Amino acid sequence: MPYLSCVSCSKKIELGPQSRCECGEPLEVHYECLKPPARIAEEANFIIRNMNIFPLTKLKPELSLGEGSTPLLSANYLKDEIGLKEFYLKNETVNPTWSFKDRGTSLGIQAAIKFDFQCIGTVSSGNMAASISAYASKAGLAAYVFVQDNIPEEKLRSIAIYGVSLYRGVGDYSELYNNALTLGEEHNIFFVSSDNPFRVEGQKTIAYEIFDQLNYESLDFIIMPVSSGGNMAAVIKACEEMEAMCLIKRAPIVIGVQAAGCSPIATAVAIGKNKIEHFGQPNTVAFAISNPYPPSGNRVLNKVKEGRASVVSISEKEILTAQLELARKEGLFVQPAGAISVAAARRLMSTGILKPEHKVAAILTGGGLKDTNILTTHSLEIGTVPVNKLELVLR
Amino acid sequence: MPYLSCVSCSKKIELGPQSRCECGEPLEVHYECLKPPARIAEEANFIIRNMNIFPLTKLKPELSLGEGSTPLLSANYLKDEIGLKEFYLKNETVNPTWSFKDRGTSLGIQAAIKFDFQCIGTVSSGNMAASISAYASKAGLAAYVFVQDNIPEEKLRSIAIYGVSLYRGVGDYSELYNNALTLGEEHNIFFVSSDNPFRVEGQKTIAYEIFDQLNYESLDFIIMPVSSGGNMAAVIKACEEMEAMCLIKRAPIVIGVQAAGCSPIATAVAIGKNKIEHFGQPNTVAFAISNPYPPSGNRVLNKVKEGRASVVSISEKEILTAQLELARKEGLFVQPAGAISVAAARRLMSTGILKPEHKVAAILTGGGLKDTNILTTHSLEIGTVPVNKLELVLR
Repeated sequence: MPYLSCVSCSKKIELGPQSRCECGEPLEVHYECLKPPARIAEEANFIIRNMNIFPLTKLKPELSLGEGSTPLLSANYLKDEIGLKEFYLKNETVNPTWSFKDRGTSLGIQAAIKFDFQCIGTVSSGNMAASISAYASKAGLAAYVFVQDNIPEEKLRSIAIYGVSLYRGVGDYSELYNNALTLGEEHNIFFVSSDNPFRVEGQKTIAYEIFDQLNYESLDFIIMPVSSGGNMAAVIKACEEMEAMCLIKRAPIVIGVQAAGCSPIATAVAIGKNKIEHFGQPNTVAFAISNPYPPSGNRVLNKVKEGRASVVSISEKEILTAQLELARKEGLFVQPAGAISVAAARRLMSTGILKPEHKVAAILTGGGLKDTNILTTHSLEIGTVPVNKLELVLR
Repeated sequence: MPYLSCVSCSKKIELGPQSRCECGEPLEVHYECLKPPARIAEEANFIIRNMNIFPLTKLKPELSLGEGSTPLLSANYLKDEIGLKEFYLKNETVNPTWSFKDRGTSLGIQAAIKFDFQCIGTVSSGNMAASISAYASKAGLAAYVFVQDNIPEEKLRSIAIYGVSLYRGVGDYSELYNNALTLGEEHNIFFVSSDNPFRVEGQKTIAYEIFDQLNYESLDFIIMPVSSGGNMAAVIKACEEMEAMCLIKRAPIVIGVQAAGCSPIATAVAIGKNKIEHFGQPNTVAFAISNPYPPSGNRVLNKVKEGRASVVSISEKEILTAQLELARKEGLFVQPAGAISVAAARRLMSTGILKPEHKVAAILTGGGLKDTNILTTHSLEIGTVPVNKLELVLR
């Protein structure tokens, strides 16, 4: 039987709805016996395909919205431009709510049902809120979604459309987060937050899929944005599991990327700290990864120490340049947080960490339509022409 | 060798970049020998998988952005609510630019390259513009995108991000459309418009996939939005081809749906006209299907006469209700035009055209984030709560 184990003090507990150990660090799922998932080609349904790498049984595949099986594209332009032998883009923007979160939410919802919750909750303003709301609707669960009070009305409407109980919390964000979790415990609302062990198991599928799509051939690096650390921890966990099952010869190094304007993990790595410290006020266009005090940050730091991962930070300019390049050269319009992996690939090549012979995959986490406001920071040309003089555009 | 044939006067011509016959009606591709495509499970790449049902050879699969293979979900709530035996939703909002257009654009780009064009073009403000822009970027082709001058700047930025030549045409829309096509002919710009024969062949894959996902079992109806008529013609063509190859026993009836506020085809069907007439000024929230003079309208009318199709219209209220229902009960946030098939299913059930024993698939064409402005027409609740009094939300 799979069980939960603390990522820090290794305390074991029975599988249940808890997210965190008494010591304050996240719990994660351990399996007594690892079995590979079905191949993408063998089974289309996300829940059925991944049954072997999920800790719950008797799941409800009909609650899947079709998450996962996202394309792994060869970045033909960027590969040459950056100077890599092979460079792949895992396009998570074509999930049902247009971000990577849907994988973790899908299994999180299954856990909520398994543990008899009628309500689920989240504190988020972006990808997580949309994802939780959509899957709660499909499963017929009530959802409480709390957001900071400075989120534009416009953005909230595309969450409210799912019919969830959506509230702006007026006051400090950390207080909102902690109080929401307390509310959940006291009133049986299952918070499927970023480091929920079932969410992490769902997110693992990104890495499993990348290797499935590469026919389990070796890969040197996976580059991905990191905010709370939950998704990065999931990708590292998947790589370790695949290595343990000998599905792959050796796990790739997972490189997490943060915006310099909110880089608590990258800072801790750079100056060799043992614990994450609160970063202070975030200041970045990459809203989706602007968590100043990441709950799975220490867990990622441990993986860095084990030599399985690294975390770097990238400037605003590099992020915005990567967003433009992805759209203009690879045809993929991603949100700034989604473009950050590509910005990092370029930077890591220039600093010699990536080498021309390396085979690299970058995860593009969320779609560009999520953050249209930031498009005003680019100088985009939109011309005007009289309809009877269209040839003017050819001058 | 496949060839082009006029859908109206049946004139045959060699495969080439022409979209229209001298008689003014669209050309379509005919095959001397039909062969089924590979199954979704057999081949992940859209171009390779569908090689057998495409008219061109030596295609470039590396230009695919991962379009197609979209989920076919059982609408478990709506099925019961509407009272159908089986009701499926084909979720086209998870294509690379979040609409069905990517299928046709993908093959359209291949045709552009085949016929040695350096530039492609389109007249559109929405799904088509984004799709053409993305695929042109991936293929390294220049793109000219013309839009009406009343489109909000905000919406245009998410097209301009792809780095295309984007122009607002000041003046009459029909004049813009016609002059753009003339510009294309005179200056070697390949216009991959809605009834371009290669676009239509690409769009066919929606219907092929639906049947693949149903293991080629029978289906009574496919319900889909119809605007220019090109996509609907493609779905009907695919069903005829599958019937001719005995892949399916009999083709489903394809029901096109228009908004009452722009329903030139539905009107012609309702009053038994032989030709489409200009509808006048469109007035609907379903912007993506508000073509008042659909170029493939007559072609759709012919299919209605042959008993293969029908076209109905739906009120604004029904469209908006369906948009809410899809988000709140099935977890799918689609643009109003995308929700119209579900609105129609409900209506057709109430008028007795659909019966409880019928098996029906509805196509959801584009994602909800495309048209966030219209969300203001819903009364969506967004609450406010002090962070130290979160339990107030449970009252």
